[in-house]
This record gives sequence, C-alpha cells and structure tokens, in this order.
Amino acid sequence: MCQLLGMNANTPTDVMFSFAGLAGRADEHKDGFGIAFFEDPGLRLFVDHHGARHSAIAELVKRYPIKSGNVIAHIRKATQGRVALQNTHPFVRELWGRYWAFAHNGDLKGFRPRLHGAFRPVGDTDSEHAFCWLMQELAKAHAAVPTALELSRTLAELCLAPAGHGSFNFLLSNGQAQWAHASTRLHWLERHHPFGAARLRDQDLSVDFGALTQASDRVALVATEPLTADEGWTAFAPGELRILRDGRSQPAV
Amino acid sequence: MCQLLGMNANTPTDVMFSFAGLAGRADEHKDGFGIAFFEDPGLRLFVDHHGARHSAIAELVKRYPIKSGNVIAHIRKATQGRVALQNTHPFVRELWGRYWAFAHNGDLKGFRPRLHGAFRPVGDTDSEHAFCWLMQELAKAHAAVPTALELSRTLAELCLAPAGHGSFNFLLSNGQAQWAHASTRLHWLERHHPFGAARLRDQDLSVDFGALTQASDRVALVATEPLTADEGWTAFAPGELRILRDGRSQPAV
Repeated sequence: MCQLLGMNANTPTDVMFSFAGLAGRADEHKDGFGIAFFEDPGLRLFVDHHGARHSAIAELVKRYPIKSGNVIAHIRKATQGRVALQNTHPFVRELWGRYWAFAHNGDLKGFRPRLHGAFRPVGDTDSEHAFCWLMQELAKAHAAVPTALELSRTLAELCLAPAGHGSFNFLLSNGQAQWAHASTRLHWLERHHPFGAARLRDQDLSVDFGALTQASDRVALVATEPLTADEGWTAFAPGELRILRDGRSQPAV
Repeated sequence: MCQLLGMNANTPTDVMFSFAGLAGRADEHKDGFGIAFFEDPGLRLFVDHHGARHSAIAELVKRYPIKSGNVIAHIRKATQGRVALQNTHPFVRELWGRYWAFAHNGDLKGFRPRLHGAFRPVGDTDSEHAFCWLMQELAKAHAAVPTALELSRTLAELCLAPAGHGSFNFLLSNGQAQWAHASTRLHWLERHHPFGAARLRDQDLSVDFGALTQASDRVALVATEPLTADEGWTAFAPGELRILRDGRSQPAV
C-alpha cells in the first residue's frame, strides 16, 4: 500500500523526522516517492521514481531542513500506471493563481469521468485522472479562490463520486490550508505546547520537540499509519474530510 | 543579467558539466536558480531562491547525473518581482496532457495582456505573466499537441507582441522538443561525432566528450553566453526562433 504524509504548521516547520519515518517504511515501496513543500504561495516539488531508500533526492530531503507551512509526501507502491516519473505523486496544477498539490492512496476502479476542462493527466494513473477531475470541478464551482469553508463544502460533495469507486484517501493543499479525506485508512495528530519527545515506530530515532519549538508553535500531521509510538494518533472515520489549518486538524464541514 | 541554459539530446544526457559552468557565473546572481529535467513526459523541477553558489539543491544537481532529453536552467538576477520561490524560473504549467517549462531572460516593460484563460501567474514577475499568456494563446490556437512545425509557426507569431515590449530571450519545452527565442543575447551549439574535449570559459574544468559518448549521440545547447572556450558557439540573430530536437538546432520556421 502507498503511504501518505501531510503536515500543516502555523510556523514554517521542517519534516525531516517524519519523512525519515515514512522513508523507513519504503522497503515494499520501491516504485517512487514525492514530496511537495509550500512556501506560501511558492512550491518545491521533489519526485523520484526510484524508491525512497535508494534515492539521492530522498537523501537530500532527509538532510535538508526545508521549512514549510504545508507539506505533502507520498511513497508509491504501483497498482495502476507504470513506474515512471510522470506517475509519481504528488501531482501539481495551477488554479486561480495558486499551485495545488495532490497525493492519493487507493484504487479507483472504473472512475474515469470526462475531462472537458483545462486539466489533463500527463501520466496514466487513476489518481492523476481523479485529481484533474477535482480541479476541473473546483474551477466550475468557484470563480476565484473561495474561503476555506466554501472550498471544504465543494470538496465534501465532490469526494462522493470517486469514493464510490474504491478507496480515496488523499491529501490536497494550495499552500493556505490542507484537506485530508479518508475512505479506508488515515490518521491525524496535533502537536502543541507543552511539547514532548516522540519516537518513530519503525526506527530507532527520537526527537525532543520541546527543545526545538516555541510555545506558540502548532503542527498538524496526517499519515496513513501512525508514525510515532508515543503520541495520540486518531483514526479518520470512513468518508471523513478534515482541514488542517494554522497547525490544527478539524472536521472540514 | 539572468543566465539561461537549454539542452536537447537525442539520447538522455546529464548536464553536470554545463550546469557547473552556469553556476560558476552565479556570483552576481544571488536571487535564485531553477532547473527542469524532462524524462519524457515526466518532469523534475528543482528551484531555490538561494543563489546557485550556496544552495544544497544546486549541489545535488551538480553531483547527481540526472539523464534527460530536455533540460532548461535559469539563474536569476531579479529585475521585476521579489526574490521568492514563486518568482523562480523555470515556470511549469500543464497543457494538452503535457508539462511545459519556460524560463526567460529580459525585461518586458508594460506587457500585461489580459489573462482570460486557464493560466494565471502565482508569483509577480513579468516573465510568468508572459508565460501564462503564451500558454493561453497556444491553447486557443490548437485543440491538442500540434506538430512541431505548427507549434513553431504559432510561437513565431506570438513572440512578436512581448518582444515589442523589451527583451524576450526565452526557452520553452514540452519534453518533445525545445524552442529558444532571442531578442538580444543567446548562443547555440551542437555537439556530435567526432566528439572532442571542451573547457569551461570561467572555470578550470574540462571534459573529454569523446570518452563519454557514442558515435550516434547528438546534443544541442543554448546559453546566454558561450559556456566553453574551445567550441563553435553561434549567436542568435535578433528575433530568431530556433527549435532543438533530436540533438539538432534548427531555425524553427
């Protein structure tokens, strides 16, 4: 199964610790990885169709403390679409003068809605097709970047169609906020004052966030599986859509 | 002045040598750099608003032999737009199910055509505005990816408007071919059998391409200034549009 990681923070924050946890699970995920860092409204996107364990680009991400308010990462286990750079998540498009990054975990059997708008897939995954359709429908629903609540309502309606065709666990961000939708498997966590220490579940690596943070810092995380052993991760309900904003995780509608 | 570097090859080729030449000129260019590598039709884009001399990402690019058929690199000296990630070239958009990368060198005073299509700038440079306009006009002129000749004809017409507002030296690629337009300053070079040695003009670095190549390899390069001291670079004529394809540089129309 693919692994998703989303991070939203009220102060630009690096994800080296969490990405190490994600990449540590990359044994079965040799089919590429990608990570998008927003520096509101700019975007850095690193993608590689080599596995995160052996990628020079993954090494860079693990060592280079890129600080960002919104991060979306994905480690791929190919189900549909060849192993190729154009099939590597996150996918990015521009809409209303904002970049949008999208990563998906799951299989959408037979969900191929007609794309009659300005967004076409470059690769051949069900995920990129669904993303282009989402962008097309958002573009029809709003004339410019709507409020987060309006966008949440539109997204909640739109999610129903693809979710009827399989598992539609995804992360979507425009750099201002991040939306996370779970069909089957996604967990969220908030970190805030007082910060403690955390230990990765799959690796011998710990961080004392208390030593690295200010009292006002807030970080919200979403991951397919809980990344740390000693923090209170909460599972999404099936069909749940949450918004991560200012380091908080809340129901989107 | 910003520096442009474009590479098109008939066999995927790395640009470590040429990029080292470009980055060596980055002393005056502290305002960011970017480089786009097509792996047809996938794309890797590395951007940083730190100068290429001190960027961890530039270090990665210099050491990591990413092989590509089309590369566009840009080192920025800000003239319009703040120093920020969203203002760093190359810019990328998707059209007709293909990624398009664009980098520009020059100043376009007062060229702000109306953007009524599906492409909006994320940053605030004249360059990204001109790119969005180019994409909008290409989308109107063709229903799907046209032949290289048809696209060249459309581009040649479109270039006239922005070129009337200042210097419009640019590189544009969709991974299948690359277009280079010069208003003021651009040079091109072809490398092919028999390959010789080349020495960077600004640094003590040489490469013997004969030892690294097959007889059938062909590479076409475009750069603001000739990168090497001992090869036959040709200056573009003012207003010249060339197409780089299969490692050859030819007049586009």
